[in-house]
Amino acid sequence: MALGRALGCAARRFSAAPAKEWLTEDFLNSLRAIVGGPNVSTATVVREQHGQDESMHRNCPPDAVVWPQSVEQVSLLAATCYSRGVPVIPFGTGTGLEGGVTAVQGGVCVNLTKMDQISELNPEDFTVAVEAGVTRKALNKYLRGNGLWFPVDPGADASLCGMVATAASGTNAVRYGTMRQNVLNLQVVLPDGRILHTAGQSRRPRKSAAGYHLTGLFVGSEGTLGFITQATLRLHGIPEATVAAICAFPNIRAAVDSTVQVLQAGLPIARIEFLDEVMMGACNRYSGLSYAELPTLFLEFHGSQQSVEEQVGATEAILQSNGGSDFAWAREPEARGQLWAARHNAWYAALALRPGKKGYSTDVCVPLSRLPEVLLETKKDLLDSNLTGPLVGHVGDGNFHCLLVLDPEDVEEKERAAEFAKRLGRRALAVGGTCTGEHGIGLGKRQLLREEVGEVALSTMRQIKMALDPKNLMNPGKVL
Amino acid sequence: MALGRALGCAARRFSAAPAKEWLTEDFLNSLRAIVGGPNVSTATVVREQHGQDESMHRNCPPDAVVWPQSVEQVSLLAATCYSRGVPVIPFGTGTGLEGGVTAVQGGVCVNLTKMDQISELNPEDFTVAVEAGVTRKALNKYLRGNGLWFPVDPGADASLCGMVATAASGTNAVRYGTMRQNVLNLQVVLPDGRILHTAGQSRRPRKSAAGYHLTGLFVGSEGTLGFITQATLRLHGIPEATVAAICAFPNIRAAVDSTVQVLQAGLPIARIEFLDEVMMGACNRYSGLSYAELPTLFLEFHGSQQSVEEQVGATEAILQSNGGSDFAWAREPEARGQLWAARHNAWYAALALRPGKKGYSTDVCVPLSRLPEVLLETKKDLLDSNLTGPLVGHVGDGNFHCLLVLDPEDVEEKERAAEFAKRLGRRALAVGGTCTGEHGIGLGKRQLLREEVGEVALSTMRQIKMALDPKNLMNPGKVL
Repeated sequence: MALGRALGCAARRFSAAPAKEWLTEDFLNSLRAIVGGPNVSTATVVREQHGQDESMHRNCPPDAVVWPQSVEQVSLLAATCYSRGVPVIPFGTGTGLEGGVTAVQGGVCVNLTKMDQISELNPEDFTVAVEAGVTRKALNKYLRGNGLWFPVDPGADASLCGMVATAASGTNAVRYGTMRQNVLNLQVVLPDGRILHTAGQSRRPRKSAAGYHLTGLFVGSEGTLGFITQATLRLHGIPEATVAAICAFPNIRAAVDSTVQVLQAGLPIARIEFLDEVMMGACNRYSGLSYAELPTLFLEFHGSQQSVEEQVGATEAILQSNGGSDFAWAREPEARGQLWAARHNAWYAALALRPGKKGYSTDVCVPLSRLPEVLLETKKDLLDSNLTGPLVGHVGDGNFHCLLVLDPEDVEEKERAAEFAKRLGRRALAVGGTCTGEHGIGLGKRQLLREEVGEVALSTMRQIKMALDPKNLMNPGKVL
Repeated sequence: MALGRALGCAARRFSAAPAKEWLTEDFLNSLRAIVGGPNVSTATVVREQHGQDESMHRNCPPDAVVWPQSVEQVSLLAATCYSRGVPVIPFGTGTGLEGGVTAVQGGVCVNLTKMDQISELNPEDFTVAVEAGVTRKALNKYLRGNGLWFPVDPGADASLCGMVATAASGTNAVRYGTMRQNVLNLQVVLPDGRILHTAGQSRRPRKSAAGYHLTGLFVGSEGTLGFITQATLRLHGIPEATVAAICAFPNIRAAVDSTVQVLQAGLPIARIEFLDEVMMGACNRYSGLSYAELPTLFLEFHGSQQSVEEQVGATEAILQSNGGSDFAWAREPEARGQLWAARHNAWYAALALRPGKKGYSTDVCVPLSRLPEVLLETKKDLLDSNLTGPLVGHVGDGNFHCLLVLDPEDVEEKERAAEFAKRLGRRALAVGGTCTGEHGIGLGKRQLLREEVGEVALSTMRQIKMALDPKNLMNPGKVL
């Protein structure tokens, strides 16, 4: 795992690291010629800002950071680095959680946030195109007034193309799908600088059976196959009505059983989130609330007024039959925001359990029927391991996070957490699940990926990587 | 296009075709040793049965047909053919529409229909695993009593793994997605015989961000990257209530505008199918019906009793506001079947327009907002081309078929139809659509694929093909 023995930067691992022959003033001038002088930086503070994401992976700064403003510039940057054998790392908002942007071999970090154009909005077709730097909140602000929204919500205000790169999902996925279901086309700069349109330039049919599904291959490729410079996304109509709810349960199984029954009843629930009693306690303390400190579901219903009321009624009956209590409902935007505040602030509430410490989130996803046992075993393991880690889950998808709060200076505790996270990953694999539902493999889960997919799948992934990036320059050291 | 100058079998194209040195009694004995003597055939009639699908592509028989009964046998067959450089062609129900199974270079056809086991049904998780020979109707029969079904319905009772191979969809896709959204994992025998599990063996989480999305790469690969021997599928709950409806419109635009408005209103319609006035006339004559011979929508609503009635009310208001008339509604299974019979029999009704002739279906898919103009231009082109071709469309997805009825002996007519189909494909490309929504590229659309995705995407697809099938033995001559 990433924590105890996080992979150091290559330069640090080998005491006699070779000098980077490519890192010359001439090379930097060629970058400046492409993006303009002020858009190239080798300042230490800038490089360190780009050497890590929000995870606890060690900071490995790139040798230079550049800010292109167009796909043509990204293409020239890629070609320049390719011809000189320089590693390149795409960088969006830096909100990843698996060390995806750390420059383990140094190289040039390509910060894409200055490419922030939104174009080709087609309300009748529910499609829009966003450049690499557009965040999900910026897109939803842009869409306001059109009756449309983009529902995939991983929590952070991440860039949408970064969300493509990690196959992000989050709280709305149970109803609207993950990024995989909401991307129609991608513009990608390949490692050698050629510009690829995964479904053909300007194409946006709702479905296609034309050739290999390159779009699907780049979703979740974590920057290792190319730069995702534009995404054509599928939009959704803003629902006429939204109702939010929370409900407490006597135990974890009752909460999960309720979730299964809601889904089996075909109720088109938009969000169904689980917080364990530790998490609820943390939320109460962090936000001055007084919720029951019990396993709790946070729910949201989208639809017409009538269908939402019907969903609410049917869901309430299911929750009650499983011992649900302490119901709270909210219909107006402000009240819904207040009700869900505990869920939205979960990460900060967890961190506040140990002020001054840092957070690390696990990310397993298992078949729903196995979720109760995995949750219970994980809670026992947490206690046995003497770790602080409230649980929060996208329970409708069988995906949950253990928000470990750790002392970054305590090597022994980090080692203990790493062992815990490894056991949790293997516990998920043992019941047919995955070690990552939505955060990706990045640096820390490469061994678990091997165990998860097996040698034949891993070698097939390697063949694809070799075919598309033969010099291994695109975000090297990640995923495989 | 495939029709006028359909690619002939290699042996016929070159008058002095080289003898197939591999085709020896020793080789056939090695196949018999794997699958058993009765499961190997070189009989002309058997080979010809396996030399074409339901399209008009020329019959190119394989040199031998084998029927494996397990994945281990498929693996041994692949390894045997790989070591001797023998082309292999996966074969399911033979119901494809783009010549995907024609043995253009001869070789061994691997008929997978004897692998028909259904396993790992997990009703709580909405998942099941099916071997290559299981058809969609067989699966839905198996699921009866569990309250579950598999909704993807391309019309034919195709094998589900064949549907994976072509990224099939059909009438329910607007609500439930295509095969792409309903496959969780695949067991694949690679060209050299190794067995791959795209998401890892026995894994079935609802979502995952673990490594490259191999599952998505094999969906739509048309047998060119490996044998799909088992698929783990996502199931859905059978809706509590279903209502079917039809409604006629004064013109095509009114029908399509209604569709756009239904989708924009967020109504979760399960099916919304368009038949033009020619198709309605053909259906009337074929089935002895008396529907208005006008552009017509066939609709289906799924949900709870209450939500279905709400959908029906809201939809009826939209249809009426666009001049919809001649409504018919059906709630009971038998009445629904009668109402939809015209749609289900459309293919045969089209063929009956010219008894003794053969059908060829086009398959473009365009953004909804461009659908009216594309439909109208296509109807004009049909008239100008003096071709018989009623239109039927999965209009909610922007996908429609022109069911061309042709005299297979009339070379000039076939050439005219080929030119028409090529123009139609380019018309779809010109408005941001695709030349194939659900039938695949197969033999006949390789030139259109090139125009659709461009040289960079095509070369990327070729690199993937080369990486996974370096000897080009898997279903050679298709897609690329």
